[in-house]
Amino acid sequence: MQNDVVRRGRLAGERSGEMMQFLSSMEADRHIADADVLVDIAHVMMLKKQQIIGENTAKELLSALLELYESGIPEQAFSVEYEDIHAGIESFLVGAAGEEIGGRLHIGRSRNDEVAACLRIRVREDIIKQLAILCRLRETLVALAEEHIATTMPGFTHLQHAQPTRLAHHLLAYEQAFSRDFDRLAESYDRVNMSPLGAAAFASTGFPVNREYVARLLGFSGILENTMDAVASRDFALEVLGDLCLMMVTASRICEELILWSSRFAGFVSLDDSFCSTSSIMPQKKNPDSAEIMRAKAGSVIGAYVSAAVVVKGLPMSYNRDLQELTPNLLRAIHDAKQSTGLLVDMLASATFDKERMRDEAGKGFSTATDLADMLVRRFDLPFRTAHTIVGMAVRKGELTLSALDSASTELLGSNLSSRGLTEADVSDVLDIEKSLEQKKVPGSPSRVSLLAAISSRKERLRADREKAEERKGLLTGSRDSLIREARRIAG
Amino acid sequence: MQNDVVRRGRLAGERSGEMMQFLSSMEADRHIADADVLVDIAHVMMLKKQQIIGENTAKELLSALLELYESGIPEQAFSVEYEDIHAGIESFLVGAAGEEIGGRLHIGRSRNDEVAACLRIRVREDIIKQLAILCRLRETLVALAEEHIATTMPGFTHLQHAQPTRLAHHLLAYEQAFSRDFDRLAESYDRVNMSPLGAAAFASTGFPVNREYVARLLGFSGILENTMDAVASRDFALEVLGDLCLMMVTASRICEELILWSSRFAGFVSLDDSFCSTSSIMPQKKNPDSAEIMRAKAGSVIGAYVSAAVVVKGLPMSYNRDLQELTPNLLRAIHDAKQSTGLLVDMLASATFDKERMRDEAGKGFSTATDLADMLVRRFDLPFRTAHTIVGMAVRKGELTLSALDSASTELLGSNLSSRGLTEADVSDVLDIEKSLEQKKVPGSPSRVSLLAAISSRKERLRADREKAEERKGLLTGSRDSLIREARRIAG
Amino acid sequence: MQNDVVRRGRLAGERSGEMMQFLSSMEADRHIADADVLVDIAHVMMLKKQQIIGENTAKELLSALLELYESGIPEQAFSVEYEDIHAGIESFLVGAAGEEIGGRLHIGRSRNDEVAACLRIRVREDIIKQLAILCRLRETLVALAEEHIATTMPGFTHLQHAQPTRLAHHLLAYEQAFSRDFDRLAESYDRVNMSPLGAAAFASTGFPVNREYVARLLGFSGILENTMDAVASRDFALEVLGDLCLMMVTASRICEELILWSSRFAGFVSLDDSFCSTSSIMPQKKNPDSAEIMRAKAGSVIGAYVSAAVVVKGLPMSYNRDLQELTPNLLRAIHDAKQSTGLLVDMLASATFDKERMRDEAGKGFSTATDLADMLVRRFDLPFRTAHTIVGMAVRKGELTLSALDSASTELLGSNLSSRGLTEADVSDVLDIEKSLEQKKVPGSPSRVSLLAAISSRKERLRADREKAEERKGLLTGSRDSLIREARRIAG
Amino acid sequence: MQNDVVRRGRLAGERSGEMMQFLSSMEADRHIADADVLVDIAHVMMLKKQQIIGENTAKELLSALLELYESGIPEQAFSVEYEDIHAGIESFLVGAAGEEIGGRLHIGRSRNDEVAACLRIRVREDIIKQLAILCRLRETLVALAEEHIATTMPGFTHLQHAQPTRLAHHLLAYEQAFSRDFDRLAESYDRVNMSPLGAAAFASTGFPVNREYVARLLGFSGILENTMDAVASRDFALEVLGDLCLMMVTASRICEELILWSSRFAGFVSLDDSFCSTSSIMPQKKNPDSAEIMRAKAGSVIGAYVSAAVVVKGLPMSYNRDLQELTPNLLRAIHDAKQSTGLLVDMLASATFDKERMRDEAGKGFSTATDLADMLVRRFDLPFRTAHTIVGMAVRKGELTLSALDSASTELLGSNLSSRGLTEADVSDVLDIEKSLEQKKVPGSPSRVSLLAAISSRKERLRADREKAEERKGLLTGSRDSLIREARRIAG
Repeated sequence: MQNDVVRRGRLAGERSGEMMQFLSSMEADRHIADADVLVDIAHVMMLKKQQIIGENTAKELLSALLELYESGIPEQAFSVEYEDIHAGIESFLVGAAGEEIGGRLHIGRSRNDEVAACLRIRVREDIIKQLAILCRLRETLVALAEEHIATTMPGFTHLQHAQPTRLAHHLLAYEQAFSRDFDRLAESYDRVNMSPLGAAAFASTGFPVNREYVARLLGFSGILENTMDAVASRDFALEVLGDLCLMMVTASRICEELILWSSRFAGFVSLDDSFCSTSSIMPQKKNPDSAEIMRAKAGSVIGAYVSAAVVVKGLPMSYNRDLQELTPNLLRAIHDAKQSTGLLVDMLASATFDKERMRDEAGKGFSTATDLADMLVRRFDLPFRTAHTIVGMAVRKGELTLSALDSASTELLGSNLSSRGLTEADVSDVLDIEKSLEQKKVPGSPSRVSLLAAISSRKERLRADREKAEERKGLLTGSRDSLIREARRIAG
Repeated sequence: MQNDVVRRGRLAGERSGEMMQFLSSMEADRHIADADVLVDIAHVMMLKKQQIIGENTAKELLSALLELYESGIPEQAFSVEYEDIHAGIESFLVGAAGEEIGGRLHIGRSRNDEVAACLRIRVREDIIKQLAILCRLRETLVALAEEHIATTMPGFTHLQHAQPTRLAHHLLAYEQAFSRDFDRLAESYDRVNMSPLGAAAFASTGFPVNREYVARLLGFSGILENTMDAVASRDFALEVLGDLCLMMVTASRICEELILWSSRFAGFVSLDDSFCSTSSIMPQKKNPDSAEIMRAKAGSVIGAYVSAAVVVKGLPMSYNRDLQELTPNLLRAIHDAKQSTGLLVDMLASATFDKERMRDEAGKGFSTATDLADMLVRRFDLPFRTAHTIVGMAVRKGELTLSALDSASTELLGSNLSSRGLTEADVSDVLDIEKSLEQKKVPGSPSRVSLLAAISSRKERLRADREKAEERKGLLTGSRDSLIREARRIAG
Repeated sequence: MQNDVVRRGRLAGERSGEMMQFLSSMEADRHIADADVLVDIAHVMMLKKQQIIGENTAKELLSALLELYESGIPEQAFSVEYEDIHAGIESFLVGAAGEEIGGRLHIGRSRNDEVAACLRIRVREDIIKQLAILCRLRETLVALAEEHIATTMPGFTHLQHAQPTRLAHHLLAYEQAFSRDFDRLAESYDRVNMSPLGAAAFASTGFPVNREYVARLLGFSGILENTMDAVASRDFALEVLGDLCLMMVTASRICEELILWSSRFAGFVSLDDSFCSTSSIMPQKKNPDSAEIMRAKAGSVIGAYVSAAVVVKGLPMSYNRDLQELTPNLLRAIHDAKQSTGLLVDMLASATFDKERMRDEAGKGFSTATDLADMLVRRFDLPFRTAHTIVGMAVRKGELTLSALDSASTELLGSNLSSRGLTEADVSDVLDIEKSLEQKKVPGSPSRVSLLAAISSRKERLRADREKAEERKGLLTGSRDSLIREARRIAG
Repeated sequence: MQNDVVRRGRLAGERSGEMMQFLSSMEADRHIADADVLVDIAHVMMLKKQQIIGENTAKELLSALLELYESGIPEQAFSVEYEDIHAGIESFLVGAAGEEIGGRLHIGRSRNDEVAACLRIRVREDIIKQLAILCRLRETLVALAEEHIATTMPGFTHLQHAQPTRLAHHLLAYEQAFSRDFDRLAESYDRVNMSPLGAAAFASTGFPVNREYVARLLGFSGILENTMDAVASRDFALEVLGDLCLMMVTASRICEELILWSSRFAGFVSLDDSFCSTSSIMPQKKNPDSAEIMRAKAGSVIGAYVSAAVVVKGLPMSYNRDLQELTPNLLRAIHDAKQSTGLLVDMLASATFDKERMRDEAGKGFSTATDLADMLVRRFDLPFRTAHTIVGMAVRKGELTLSALDSASTELLGSNLSSRGLTEADVSDVLDIEKSLEQKKVPGSPSRVSLLAAISSRKERLRADREKAEERKGLLTGSRDSLIREARRIAG
């Protein structure tokens, strides 16, 4: 106990090893330890600037912290005898540089604002990475779409063959969905990247700290003004978890399709062996295991969201230790989402699509029956619902031939369609898949011209999004570099 | 069955009443029926503009639809024998105006794009209402804060008295949190308010529909380009549910506090009788039931989010009937959230705060011990950790007196503090609550000057937010009015 | 307000209509109103037996309550001006019979124990119904299995054709799973069917009530002894919700398969038209909508569970109004689960399985490759892993012929298998599907003999389960009948 | 790749390190590796008994496996280059003992039945441990109750002081709740402890394996007959997760109370320092952090349940790789629940209750007003509702004195109560807390006599439950010992 400089004054009592482990956030704190060193550096620079600590103290503290930054945090700082990495690092500094120096690190702040800052720094970096992966994923989808503009395939509703479409159209649906995931994460980034520092325990501090200066040093785009909100809220974390849930739900859908399409029934796609497993007993098996695990990861991310929301629900102000339990759920979801979508890029890029099988299936199931109904509307000025009923009746009888249509028409309208000029050739012409597709020319549809236009506009959009992601990344790197440079200058 | 013009062609078989009820979305569709009439009107106007239907058909359809708009949809259209309100209205029109007219309504579209459009229209209206309620809630919090700038109270961490703060500071924490809920919903609005119309079943249509024109007529700010994504995605609904979860989690926290503060222990607040219940057996009871139910509603909204996410997870493209089940979960959550936050406004506005009780408690629990440690740092140039330990040891002994500090200092440093000039008066002076509060001058802190600044800047922000919400509302009303006007003009 | 006899003493203040609606549990209480009348009757009988009320009061109260039991509760008792049905009925009795009589109903109890009792009565009845549905479902599965003992089909792992099986085997897997759902619900029943009555607000009462007598009158199998636990816990509700989640997860799996099997790809099954929908635009479509909605209902039930768990989590003792919010979530899940599984029975019973399609697919994808490897083990005493590798290599080359096996064997072992006596006939013989199936004779496997044994033992089990369910139902009906009979006797 | 004997035949392709890590279940498999060795041993013994492998092969395999059992599994078997521990161990045996021996291990089984068996073995052991912890927890609660039979305290509803109770009564409420958690887990145990072995991939095997024998060897109480269900279902895992959710929800409630009672407001309890933290900035703080983390752990366990349910929902038969993702969620929840409840035992046992504070609060808030109303009923034969209203009106006026009651009575009934003989002494007598408590004599109530009876009956129950738990543990240990003994005998 005596090693923990935070506990030593107020609390007596020997804690059991299990209790220490239970109380300590060390396992999760490994993921924010690097951020903590940056926060410490910026805090010391601010204390010096505000003349709260002397030049010499600042020098020595910064030297020690830069050493941690450069050589890494020693393992002893991660001992579970400390409740968290903040106590671990402070205790280490006290041990290394003496309490006269190390004991001055924690002036004018609390672990409450410190941990919130570290978590935000960690999450913003993860968002930056996730945004880059989303760009790669969308680029892959657009590139595949470009390759498959002419790959005709069946489109499905209710898992039934519905109407023909093109693989490009199908893939661009996902690209469009993922672009909204990009937007959501980018917007959340702006709420994540706010500094809680200076809030201390929740009431700020009597020391003349400079909140804006610290925020700027750490690359935050502003401060969370109200200091109680700054330490007590975790909606930034819940929001990011929510973004990841939606992204993973979309990813689970493409995985579901890859699994379906890999089935012997469809045979539309063959995943690269490196994404598959075989059976320990059935030597012939090649299973799309990676897609199955990704599909399942959506479940894990949803569960992490639930955990986090339940933890925060109903907590009074301001900081409660329950919030610690949110962190591992958050970090696990971030990891799962990042890994899943990253591997999805490669899984898609290395997959082989069987164009012939797709085309073969595209015409099955009377997939152009709607075109036939539409033609009856145009040609004979029938109400759509009447034409729809006639075609439906013909299908119920099992075929879309002139005679089936005639018989349905007679039943419904009292006269057949041949007598009004419909021929067998008209019928088979309108049922032609490629013609059906090329007739669909509105924006976003599967005709060649619409697909080309869509691909071109999506590329434009992607270029802008990538720039946006990289600009943010650049700002972060820039602020970090200049923080370290300045700290080195002071440390001498 | 015969009444349902959609089913009659393809499907035979008598359905049981329970099966009809199970399959039908009618119960939830009551909430989108008004939107459906608007969508129908805009669709007909577009069909006419594109010369897909003739002027006379357009006239008659619009007349019938305007009748529904003005007099309400007749109850028969809501019969569960129809699978949904779209079939109900179309069947009603066929019945009323004859199939020659009514049977032409559904040209160039499908229920898939139609229901997605209706849901988006409904949700955007609900967001508008929720944004207005959030503005009212935030205004109430700011007004209360203004009233309670001088209301000193204990601030809590871990439900322990921690440091003194002011009620204004506490309430502004919530205002700041709710302002992020406002921002999230406003951003989601822009993703909700996109038109899926023209996507038809998912592949668009061979008719030369005009997607942008319909979108404009209905006040959408653009189209969801890819037509498969347009009908298959529900991330807009999940996103709004996620926003509401976060908002309700924040609301549950303020309710938790109102419950705690209403307890005899705290006695900080008394809710108006109209928000309370008594006991059927204990005649003396006055219970904060409304706050308890609101706290619980957060659970219901989280559950609705889970339901919706689970429903969509793993669904292949494009439309699947599972999506129908998402709607009641969404609408229920929207209702619960709107009602809870709406009533929270009145509950807060009518509550009575007991300033004296709050002040009495503010100084308990050595709440200014941090100030004492800070003073030792400043006065004797002690490292903060050393000062923290000395004060902690004194507290463990049960009092913050000069002698307790001296004894702790002697134990830790080998010398006492009196000999360095510390007096009993110094100690009691630094422990003064109001002085402690006034020393905290950084932005967002509980000193009078910081609170005044915060209130002023939050008012500014609120004004801008209210304008933003009202502008959106105005656009919607404007587009609806001009749609109806134009429809009337055509209908003659 | 004045009409609510519970509120009138302690609370002033006019409540808004919205507030009343928010606070009132009336909507959900419609589902427990019948139970409440029974609870009231039993309570009055006990009060009389214990001489807490006089004979005359008992007579008049029982007369009034029996009138409610027989003619139904008047609509006015459901007004949202009452917080709940308990206040509604008491206020009605006070209005009808005068306060001298009606005002004596609530002696020695509280709404806290009353509502818990009503909810338990309602839930136990729902469990009884659900158990009966599960029996029907399992009987249907067994009957279908009996019909399809010889229906060979492919079995799947990872949605890949894996090994041949029989439809009977597949359906019995579900029957076995649903039988565990039966067991769980039956066990939960015993925890649900315990009486909280006599607990009053939580501390019981000073009146000499007779807890065991009331429990017996109402058909409870015992009392929840500790009176604080009796009113404060809802684990019985969460437990039932959990049972329903698991049952619906199993149901969602069979629905997923019915959807897959209905797809044009598989074509294994055709659901009856009455369980399907068509498309409003694509006249040829026949979609398995009912199965999709059931699959989605699993999501709603999981969400209801989450809502309920979140509501209870972290609540201090004893009763908190939050618990009211649990009820609608519970009742909705019960309804969804009951309806889904009930309709699943009919959907399965009316489905048409295409035996030929199933058999055709059973041999695809080298589905008996394991049998080949096994044969190599037996015939040539190869280690299984070696045989597995040889067959795997042959499949990778695209065929399971003697020459492919020889070439793999040569590559792996340095010698071919023909030279050891393997012939083309051996290979094709071991790959025969029916032979493969008939060789699997262990309990629970898909050979004819194992299936017959399984069907026979499952029937036995089902008979016992049905008896168990009916016995419970009989006890309930019996206790209700004798309660009413006795009440009538007293009322005269 | 080449090291993985399962993959080598069928699959080509080099996998990236990240892909291997993603696909591999190794991290979670560490928790089932010991179980896997037992399963392997039993499998080999059965293969020998059924003469599927020869005596010598059995000897060598068993020697190698016993070596793993005794000295631990070598680290190399846990390499992520293997997809799972089953492949890891088999590959290790092939490497160590040669393919001639090691390659025979996997005859007549698959990883599908193997992993299901391992998971069930692991979970049943965890249940045994959790049952023991629940016994300890309940014993602690009963022991504390015994100590606090006379500790009068306020009971709460809606967090309002409601009626007096005794700490013993309060603690026994939790004991009763936890005893249901015990019952649920014990019942689940019986569904967990069933053997899936012999199911192989899902269709069983053509080898004449002996399912009952293997089951018996491993201490299972029976076999899961249908072999498809045996490998495809995970309801056993979901069920256990559900049990843990409910248990943790109950634990979260007692933690909530410990936090409330630790607050300065209540001051009812002081947790031992070893379960508390202080603040890094506020030297006076002593926070009940352990209770907060436990409360939060309930959220994590609920989230794990959701993850698992979502993963399984909608999966078709039979095995899908998604199921792998269920395992870490399950194991994490088991760990969290076990650790939380284990530490809760010590936290309760070491806590100090302040009897005086409790008694002081017990009489506040007119906590015996119900007794007063009850007395008016008895003494003046008033209807309860009338008496309730009179007392409620008096409270609204702020005091429960004779004159306040008289004035309320006059207002309501037109006459006062003094005139009917009520005296000031009567009023104060009936309001006496201890008298009120002693009057509550029904089973489960807080009077001394009821508490003594409850404690005695709970001890009886606990004794029986502990025996039940230990009997199960004994059976497991016994079967394991005899398995190893028999294996050693064969290995020679």
